[in-house]
Amino acid sequence: MKAIKPQLASGTRDFNQLDMIKRRYVISILERLFKKYSFFEISTPAIENTSTLTGNYGGDGDKLIFNILNSGNYLSKVNDSVSLKNYENITKVISKKALRYDLSVPLARYVALNRNDITFPFKRYQIQPVWRADRPQKGRFREFYQCDIDVIGSESIVSEIEMINIIFDFFNEIKFKNFRVRINSRSIMNSFFGLLKLKNYDDILVILDKKDKVGLEQVVEEIKKLNIEKSSIDIILRLLYLDDKEVLSELCDLGLKSSVQETKNILDMCLTSGLSENVCYDFSLVRGLGYYTGFIVEVDIIDSDFGSVVGGGRYDNLTSVFGLKDVSGIGISFGLERIMILMEENNLFPKDLDKSINYLFLNFGDEYISDYIGLASKLRSKNKVVEIYSKSNSIKKQMIYANKKNVDFVVIFGENEKKSQKILIKNMKTGSQEDIPLDKILNFIQ
Amino acid sequence: MKAIKPQLASGTRDFNQLDMIKRRYVISILERLFKKYSFFEISTPAIENTSTLTGNYGGDGDKLIFNILNSGNYLSKVNDSVSLKNYENITKVISKKALRYDLSVPLARYVALNRNDITFPFKRYQIQPVWRADRPQKGRFREFYQCDIDVIGSESIVSEIEMINIIFDFFNEIKFKNFRVRINSRSIMNSFFGLLKLKNYDDILVILDKKDKVGLEQVVEEIKKLNIEKSSIDIILRLLYLDDKEVLSELCDLGLKSSVQETKNILDMCLTSGLSENVCYDFSLVRGLGYYTGFIVEVDIIDSDFGSVVGGGRYDNLTSVFGLKDVSGIGISFGLERIMILMEENNLFPKDLDKSINYLFLNFGDEYISDYIGLASKLRSKNKVVEIYSKSNSIKKQMIYANKKNVDFVVIFGENEKKSQKILIKNMKTGSQEDIPLDKILNFIQ
Repeated sequence: MKAIKPQLASGTRDFNQLDMIKRRYVISILERLFKKYSFFEISTPAIENTSTLTGNYGGDGDKLIFNILNSGNYLSKVNDSVSLKNYENITKVISKKALRYDLSVPLARYVALNRNDITFPFKRYQIQPVWRADRPQKGRFREFYQCDIDVIGSESIVSEIEMINIIFDFFNEIKFKNFRVRINSRSIMNSFFGLLKLKNYDDILVILDKKDKVGLEQVVEEIKKLNIEKSSIDIILRLLYLDDKEVLSELCDLGLKSSVQETKNILDMCLTSGLSENVCYDFSLVRGLGYYTGFIVEVDIIDSDFGSVVGGGRYDNLTSVFGLKDVSGIGISFGLERIMILMEENNLFPKDLDKSINYLFLNFGDEYISDYIGLASKLRSKNKVVEIYSKSNSIKKQMIYANKKNVDFVVIFGENEKKSQKILIKNMKTGSQEDIPLDKILNFIQ
Repeated sequence: MKAIKPQLASGTRDFNQLDMIKRRYVISILERLFKKYSFFEISTPAIENTSTLTGNYGGDGDKLIFNILNSGNYLSKVNDSVSLKNYENITKVISKKALRYDLSVPLARYVALNRNDITFPFKRYQIQPVWRADRPQKGRFREFYQCDIDVIGSESIVSEIEMINIIFDFFNEIKFKNFRVRINSRSIMNSFFGLLKLKNYDDILVILDKKDKVGLEQVVEEIKKLNIEKSSIDIILRLLYLDDKEVLSELCDLGLKSSVQETKNILDMCLTSGLSENVCYDFSLVRGLGYYTGFIVEVDIIDSDFGSVVGGGRYDNLTSVFGLKDVSGIGISFGLERIMILMEENNLFPKDLDKSINYLFLNFGDEYISDYIGLASKLRSKNKVVEIYSKSNSIKKQMIYANKKNVDFVVIFGENEKKSQKILIKNMKTGSQEDIPLDKILNFIQ
């Protein structure tokens, strides 16, 4: 018999009972919200063909995809004379499948595959794990959950507003106010950098994207060093120092009124539909170089370096990789793992979340088991959580277990009770006891 | 830009909105049940170290484990002179992780790893996907869900009875009566074959295990051919032709009274606790050669070759692989995928499961969007599912969408309604319409 040290794979986690109760609490809030906004759940497999995934996340992203070995003799198609130094070429031969890296590319694949059965606009939510072969470190895991909503096949600004509404509803529900919704628009950025006659402004975006991590000052320093016209640098820096409302009017003054209009509309509608002033325009918001083409949004915690807890935006080309063109999409992703930490740090979980067992039957011996089973079944018919203690240990030991498991009531049915056809129910919070005739139990249970 | 054909990885599935509603329906029944019996959820990662998984499923099982390639240059530790013909040796070097094959071995790893934090008996449920590199075929997938409950660290017969109770509760809940619970006991088998002085009776078990597939007659033929004493063969065959109650008394007569006692107790308690006579003893029930050591159970559909929908048993050695000895466990697994087919074939899903959108706001133009957002938010505050149609298409087109999406009510708010500060709500089932003053909406919504 082999004897193995029990251990988790690096970067993965178990979740125990209390962890799961907390995670379910947050997930159920999100699910309820998503449904109210008429997003419905779909599910895609953990495994996708590698060809579906690669090429979508940039070279660095592609390296973080977990590849799955082909079954059987996966080496049979590798030529024996091939040098083993060239692992990247061999990978393509020995691995055709991979674990999904996010939920967006599988969504695009799903939409393209089912285009004829889908009624557009297609609004779906998906709460599933994704996997990344990242170096594990504190708070960064190789398996983690994403909670995504997307609208595919609609260009309506209704989606932008609803995404922001959902964000506010969520924070309202978890009773956390100290957050900020920053929005920007790739269309504004494109026309702004077009105005400056900058064809390739990716390096500027990379610098701006780091603002949350390195701070405004360092961003300014790096922009000053860029090899572009001094006048352009001056304009960029001026915008960075303006507050959000000033930036938008400055951009209008620069002649970008039509590009700015949509973002202004979004901000206005947020205010008129009663959202707080916590929505602001942020000219430096980039959200990576990824696939966004219009509206982008990110939510962070005020006065903290917590990182963003929600993010997303509008993209026009996601499904085109799969041959489905001219379909606009918009989506946001709630970072479950960060939200869990946020809730833990701010004590946002309800107090009695770990209340689990309502009734524990003490065990006075095998001759009573039939009775326990029958009585427990009555209590369960009233949706109570009932456990029958498994052994006729000493009562002291059984009560210690009851305390450990934080049960509401202990049920006592032994020799005396059987004779008198009553059960004794002990309230573990108050310590009070009550005799209940067997045939009155269902009246007692509310 | 690459253009890829959108396709699923072989043996995997997407689930659309209606699929998910149905799956959630079944899962929520199981979850509610498991909780009532004081099983609580834990979650383990999809990825485990390969060393944790292999060696537990037999040689054939091990071959069905999906291996994950190490990140980076996974070949760096493979000697360039190594023959590529020997893929099994190379696998150990280039792949250290794998996808879980079931939920039992991860549970054993979890219990061994967390032994000091767990209060025993430990009752957990787990509803998660597992992966097997099996040849995909009709109804057999490479990614599928298992729904497991286990009790670890208790030898009490309470667990056996409760497992059977849960099975009955489940079928009761889905309103399906045509099932049969077969039980057997590895202890009975061990002492019976011991009595016949058969040291290795694995080949008999293999034959018996095929009974559901090949039928009793072929089993009898194969047993006749076995190279064991004629008298032993006669006894085995006699048992196979007896009905379940006769078998047990025959086994008692053979001197196995003490081994049989527990199974008799279980059957008696099932009857006294009000379960139907659908629980029967089946001498030929084997459930593979796996790790079971005592009670085994399987549920199948009467008069069909549907295969088993639930199965499990008691095992004493599962955690010992991880150095945790003398811990008894018992568990059953509900096969979600089979249950889904069973429910579909027997029309067991509630009729209105696909009722999803309560209110659809028709869209009369961008100038009304703020109003729609505000009104929708009021309806959502009453937990209604509300969609705002995304474009100001023709009303006809919007009504077609409303019909496709099977909405309950259509909400009309255009020029006239804005003037009169009323909304028009059309009941899509009855066709009747009602004018509601804007400030009375919340009274109207129940």
